[in-house]
Amino acid sequence: MAEKSYFSHEVEPQDVDFTLRAKAPSLIMAALNAAGRDAHVKGFGVDELGTENRTWVLARMAIELDRRPLQYTPYRVETWISGYNRALSTRNFRLLDENGEAFARIVSQWAMLDIERRTSVDLSLLAAAHDRFVVDAPSPIDPPCRLRPLAGEAAVTEEHRVRYGDIDFNRHVNTIRYIEMIFDCLPVEALAADRPFRFDIHFLHESTLGETLRIVCEEQPEGFGFEIAAGEHVCVRASVRWK
Amino acid sequence: MAEKSYFSHEVEPQDVDFTLRAKAPSLIMAALNAAGRDAHVKGFGVDELGTENRTWVLARMAIELDRRPLQYTPYRVETWISGYNRALSTRNFRLLDENGEAFARIVSQWAMLDIERRTSVDLSLLAAAHDRFVVDAPSPIDPPCRLRPLAGEAAVTEEHRVRYGDIDFNRHVNTIRYIEMIFDCLPVEALAADRPFRFDIHFLHESTLGETLRIVCEEQPEGFGFEIAAGEHVCVRASVRWK
Repeated sequence: MAEKSYFSHEVEPQDVDFTLRAKAPSLIMAALNAAGRDAHVKGFGVDELGTENRTWVLARMAIELDRRPLQYTPYRVETWISGYNRALSTRNFRLLDENGEAFARIVSQWAMLDIERRTSVDLSLLAAAHDRFVVDAPSPIDPPCRLRPLAGEAAVTEEHRVRYGDIDFNRHVNTIRYIEMIFDCLPVEALAADRPFRFDIHFLHESTLGETLRIVCEEQPEGFGFEIAAGEHVCVRASVRWK
Repeated sequence: MAEKSYFSHEVEPQDVDFTLRAKAPSLIMAALNAAGRDAHVKGFGVDELGTENRTWVLARMAIELDRRPLQYTPYRVETWISGYNRALSTRNFRLLDENGEAFARIVSQWAMLDIERRTSVDLSLLAAAHDRFVVDAPSPIDPPCRLRPLAGEAAVTEEHRVRYGDIDFNRHVNTIRYIEMIFDCLPVEALAADRPFRFDIHFLHESTLGETLRIVCEEQPEGFGFEIAAGEHVCVRASVRWK
């Protein structure tokens, strides 16, 4: 049975907002980088899978964030895989302060993509490789919740043309850019107040260089709902719920 | 007499573009972070100056970039102050690969701002403190060059509304965001080719949350010229010259 992995970080100047606290997207980025490193070290990262024309694709994620650390504060990312089914592998994270106390908890669900066929790989076929990496510890929060289409009321729409700095090695908009677009729509006062929240996000469709994204932000009873669309396709659906 | 300072880095996933090489703005960000750390360690950083209502403001910068390292490549930032006059302090950088060979050279010029009065501080008044930090080594490239207003021919204009993720602790658009906006305007093929270039940038005026920036990109004989304006003010002027 595998063990949890740990990665050390520090809040860098580029991570903070005007309150000098780490932006939520920066904390999520640190977690996703830890995922990449952990998969790489354990031999089932994108590098290794690339040779077989397969890659991991983030399908859904949920984060519960209690507080955001100040610039230059050290913290650790704890990460582990808790299980998988045919479609999705579940990777968990806790962000730990210097006393080992968790200030953020994340559950992420990943599909494996066959790059040439553009289809999902049945993860049960990889059981022999996958089982070695499963840690016997449950997810720290409820898995990503169901997100319904927006009602379209009290909604504000922004546009963003996909540019060089937005895309990943596949020339698709990268995960963190979508998350930054969403947090850019939230009221600045709420972000400044460092209010605890739960954030759920689903990645439904790719968008590519030169496309124009429509970012719709809808006020809802307990927070905000979001859709990011390119042409006919909803690429991302998300919600922020204040606690 | 002071010594040069060194800071270790590694190209992280968020630093790379679709070629898996570090984006130029990420390399510049690593240099600017090293400047912040070095000033902090030596006791004349923004933290210490803040108690006297003073802060360093980047006025001009030039970078010559030969090649961009791949993801997960370690490199070092070498930085030193080479001198100052009444208005500007000159800080230099070289980015060094694992063999100690420089792949980028940067000269930056900083003014000191009195935050309440919104005026520059005469640096000759700080000579006693400043002199201790000057290193007896020249700048590695020519200082930031003169940049004339754009002719306005063959120009393309983009718009960008300043959002939460764009601003620094002063609620002004941060340096790196301006640089990202400029690189987002360059032809993707030129960036993909990892072509060596010189980049000059002048910071002329602040822009703040909610303002709409106009980013003008003009093709010129040896590269591109840029202006970023908010309302009546030109905030940034820049040029990229291929080598």
